[in-house]
Amino acid sequence: MSARATTRPGGRSARVQQSVHQAVRDLEAEVGRDALTVPLIAARAGVTPSTVYRRWGDLRELLSDVAVERLRPDAPPADHGSLRADLEAWTVQFAEEMSSTAGRTYIRDALLGDPGQGNAGRCSDYAAEQLKAIGVRAAGRGEAVPELETLLDVVVAPLMYRILFRPSELSQAYAGRLVAAALGRAGSPSDT
Amino acid sequence: MSARATTRPGGRSARVQQSVHQAVRDLEAEVGRDALTVPLIAARAGVTPSTVYRRWGDLRELLSDVAVERLRPDAPPADHGSLRADLEAWTVQFAEEMSSTAGRTYIRDALLGDPGQGNAGRCSDYAAEQLKAIGVRAAGRGEAVPELETLLDVVVAPLMYRILFRPSELSQAYAGRLVAAALGRAGSPSDT
Repeated sequence: MSARATTRPGGRSARVQQSVHQAVRDLEAEVGRDALTVPLIAARAGVTPSTVYRRWGDLRELLSDVAVERLRPDAPPADHGSLRADLEAWTVQFAEEMSSTAGRTYIRDALLGDPGQGNAGRCSDYAAEQLKAIGVRAAGRGEAVPELETLLDVVVAPLMYRILFRPSELSQAYAGRLVAAALGRAGSPSDT
Repeated sequence: MSARATTRPGGRSARVQQSVHQAVRDLEAEVGRDALTVPLIAARAGVTPSTVYRRWGDLRELLSDVAVERLRPDAPPADHGSLRADLEAWTVQFAEEMSSTAGRTYIRDALLGDPGQGNAGRCSDYAAEQLKAIGVRAAGRGEAVPELETLLDVVVAPLMYRILFRPSELSQAYAGRLVAAALGRAGSPSDT
């Protein structure tokens, strides 16, 4: 997220962000992505184009912001009773969502309209937060938990690399192998 | 690379590609990236704009093609006498090149103007070819070599993920840890 787009929940700024984001989502569904323009979006959102330019810079940065919001997980990771089961379920779901046509589009949008890499960082933070929640729950059960950075390197990075660069099999079996590799490094954080 | 841009070396098609790519590189240095347009590039390259549109579709796809060419390694990986030394040297160099401002720009360009993901696949193929050459050399020395897919998952993917999503320390020590993790999986390909 660019500094411009920082908001205080409930304030006018947050309301503008919400109505502009909603206008993008609605118009994308109605007229298609290639027909989106800042004046069109502003008119639908009931703001002036200059409000949009002042806040987001340009269309690409706005689309990047909207994409990141869409990538935000809407629930904490499900509890399947063990670290392995939780990680496997999360990994399979993450791979499915991110490798879908919509998921790929949002990831590309997030990366591209984002010179400062803040939005890409938010995408990574979402995954990190979910993995952290899984780890905290597992530690509460007395399980040995890999470092968060290990989970990002060993589970998330290979999925994202394949989604972006190497369209290939992202099966449940592959997700399971990544999780197994990460669990093999639990309890030896000095190794990460 | 889009199907349109496939060329036979030495033919007219290859000459057009070369002069258009050169025009992009020259103009980018002279007028800056944001001022690039297809008519400007075509004029410099001595072709018609319609030649460019026919072949590349639009400016974004052309920039993607140029970016991928720039990411192509210009030499085989250096021989440092052992698998570990070769992998460490390659990994450090790859991290340095890809995380530079120019490297990041080329990666983003390659990903962006590439609806079919062919150019992103070429970026990955370049890394895969270099790692394969290192592995063939190591096998010739009698060393146990990890599977190529393991090297991509354990070494390349974490670097690329951090470069794109999680700007963070990409030190020589970090590269060394990635290589050590990959070497720990040499000779157990069923594990990958």
